[in-house]
Amino acid sequence: MAVNLSEPDTLRPVDGARWAVVDAAIKAPGDPDLALLTLDAGTRVSAVLTRNAFAAAPIVAARMAIGAGDVRALLVNSGNANAGVGTPGEHDAADCCARVAKVVGVGSHQVAPFSTGVIGQRLPMGQLLPAIDRLVEPDATADWVDAARAIMTTDTVPKGASRQLTTANGETVTLTGIAKGSGMIRPDMATMLGFVATDAAVPQEDLDAALRAANDRSFSCISVDGDTSTNDAFCAAATGRGAGLSSEAPDWRAFVDALVDLSQALAQAIVRDAEGATRFITLSVTGAHDRDEARAVAFTIAHSPLFKTAAFAGDPNWGRLLAAVGRAPIDELAIEGVSIGLDDIRVVTGGGLDSDYREADGAAVMAQSEYTVAVDLGRGQAEATVWTSDLSEAYVRINADYRS
Amino acid sequence: MAVNLSEPDTLRPVDGARWAVVDAAIKAPGDPDLALLTLDAGTRVSAVLTRNAFAAAPIVAARMAIGAGDVRALLVNSGNANAGVGTPGEHDAADCCARVAKVVGVGSHQVAPFSTGVIGQRLPMGQLLPAIDRLVEPDATADWVDAARAIMTTDTVPKGASRQLTTANGETVTLTGIAKGSGMIRPDMATMLGFVATDAAVPQEDLDAALRAANDRSFSCISVDGDTSTNDAFCAAATGRGAGLSSEAPDWRAFVDALVDLSQALAQAIVRDAEGATRFITLSVTGAHDRDEARAVAFTIAHSPLFKTAAFAGDPNWGRLLAAVGRAPIDELAIEGVSIGLDDIRVVTGGGLDSDYREADGAAVMAQSEYTVAVDLGRGQAEATVWTSDLSEAYVRINADYRS
Repeated sequence: MAVNLSEPDTLRPVDGARWAVVDAAIKAPGDPDLALLTLDAGTRVSAVLTRNAFAAAPIVAARMAIGAGDVRALLVNSGNANAGVGTPGEHDAADCCARVAKVVGVGSHQVAPFSTGVIGQRLPMGQLLPAIDRLVEPDATADWVDAARAIMTTDTVPKGASRQLTTANGETVTLTGIAKGSGMIRPDMATMLGFVATDAAVPQEDLDAALRAANDRSFSCISVDGDTSTNDAFCAAATGRGAGLSSEAPDWRAFVDALVDLSQALAQAIVRDAEGATRFITLSVTGAHDRDEARAVAFTIAHSPLFKTAAFAGDPNWGRLLAAVGRAPIDELAIEGVSIGLDDIRVVTGGGLDSDYREADGAAVMAQSEYTVAVDLGRGQAEATVWTSDLSEAYVRINADYRS
Repeated sequence: MAVNLSEPDTLRPVDGARWAVVDAAIKAPGDPDLALLTLDAGTRVSAVLTRNAFAAAPIVAARMAIGAGDVRALLVNSGNANAGVGTPGEHDAADCCARVAKVVGVGSHQVAPFSTGVIGQRLPMGQLLPAIDRLVEPDATADWVDAARAIMTTDTVPKGASRQLTTANGETVTLTGIAKGSGMIRPDMATMLGFVATDAAVPQEDLDAALRAANDRSFSCISVDGDTSTNDAFCAAATGRGAGLSSEAPDWRAFVDALVDLSQALAQAIVRDAEGATRFITLSVTGAHDRDEARAVAFTIAHSPLFKTAAFAGDPNWGRLLAAVGRAPIDELAIEGVSIGLDDIRVVTGGGLDSDYREADGAAVMAQSEYTVAVDLGRGQAEATVWTSDLSEAYVRINADYRS
């Protein structure tokens, strides 16, 4: 059951980007599992992809296509990750791209493939290739919510968001994005699948920089279980049908802010829909020497099974928080400088229990479905925020049953 | 329910070392929770202690006492960790040591205190001090199994082992040790509580070296949940009542081997009794550039909730193993060199599924209560072994209920 997350009613269409969705019977029958995003000529595409050494075959193919700089279609299937099957998996990915190229009327190198689902099984090519042909039929036409649903695996809610801004010239710029993911989530400078499109016309290098900035403050700040997927990918497409924007423009900051805001909404949606999650927890670490140090402390807490089970129980077990901070991989932490709060309740001051702290106050905070754990290290000015979920019996049940 | 671990029938006494045990009513009434090990004059004591920045008050006191070099008593209480309570906790530890010193007839600086249990609560000094007085009464006299039981918290089985060796001179040397721990277990160059004594006479610096060697190959090679305790400690005492042994002696290698073997038995007992564990898993990583790299891969697997839940389910989900190896923090892993086995079944060869692998074979291995996951990185000669447990719904239940 997702934490305070409901299906998006509607997502704004993006001029120059069109979705099509069909059921290729990779997942349970009746669940659409194959989606195609076709992009107008001139669209700029940027991506951050998993750094897992066992990157899946489609990731390798997508990296090449996007690197070549003229992508016109993104193909996404759910239910099968096309990972860990060696050379045959690379051929399957290439065959899918060739089939898309043929029906869409572009070159094979202009198609970037993405897959998510079970690792270690060949793609069912006998079903996939005919399904690709059906993607260009009129009844396959889909909106962004349909696409969000088609890329789900253990997700319980489709995830998407839209943002708009008005430029100094009075032009409206639209950004819409979707994402999927609820387990094996600890993106390493990348993410689970996320796709954002905008109608703005943005130079390639500015789009790359904006995507990295957005990723650094969204998908790189979440963890469900510390496990990095072989298939993580976050892509942005700027179709160029609308206003022109570049890092020189007065509206650039507003554009990047909108992209960051949209990306955070998508990344947080993944944590809200984390496998078995009952809580959405913001970990805010301040007073660090540098951002890496702040992130190291935040992720140590986010990956502590003892903190996560206490969060599940709603138990203000600050001893476990303190133990996690104490074992974070940072140098020479002076515990006297450390303070810890739960929302606006001060729990730890100067490395020990705050004299005004009352257990009932901490319990009231942790009984909520959303709250902030604030850790101040008292040794610098840097900070970081990470979003995470709790560890419930349902997480174990889901992952003992599901073959990912 | 512990995995293939039963209570030790009997543990060999060690000349020069005597246990006493009483019930101080820190844990549930009727459960002994306070133990005292008194040591003959001339005993050498060595210890490795937690590197958690929030080291508990008794750890700080024990470090000083052992550093001073003339320890005559170890006091251990379970049920309360005396951690995270600031200066009052330091005073409580000092007061306990002073009381032991008085009743035993040694100096306060000759007493090393150890505590394990709930973090963040003051020790119940009103109960503890009178209980310390009772430790010297005749009916408090205890054997090593009694002591192992008195230091348990969420442990379900008392843990201990004995080893003997015969020197070239025909003298018998005895080593006996006990340990506790089943959660918050990822010792960082230290461990949960472990106490070993030998009747050998060993120079201080040789005892220190032997203890570090034993720790490196035992407690530093286990992980239940990646959480390092504030109270980890592993101590060795050489009472000097028996044979003289030093690093110059021909029997030294046999002594260190016996200490390593004993320490591994204790460390493995902790994993066998891990909270909620249903499997005991040996992670063997070979073909690494160096031991740190091999350990990094092994611990990445050991800390992967997705691998651990698959292990709980008995599901040979090698995709999760592959994803964990791929995200291990090592440089430039070439997946073509990686092979993975389950006991003697080859699963992954050259980074992809082995052509002879059959799912039923992998499932048969992982249905066992004990098995080995063997990962060869194919890029060097170094190796490491780590022992871990699975992640079950019972782990979540235990840690959602228990205030550690």
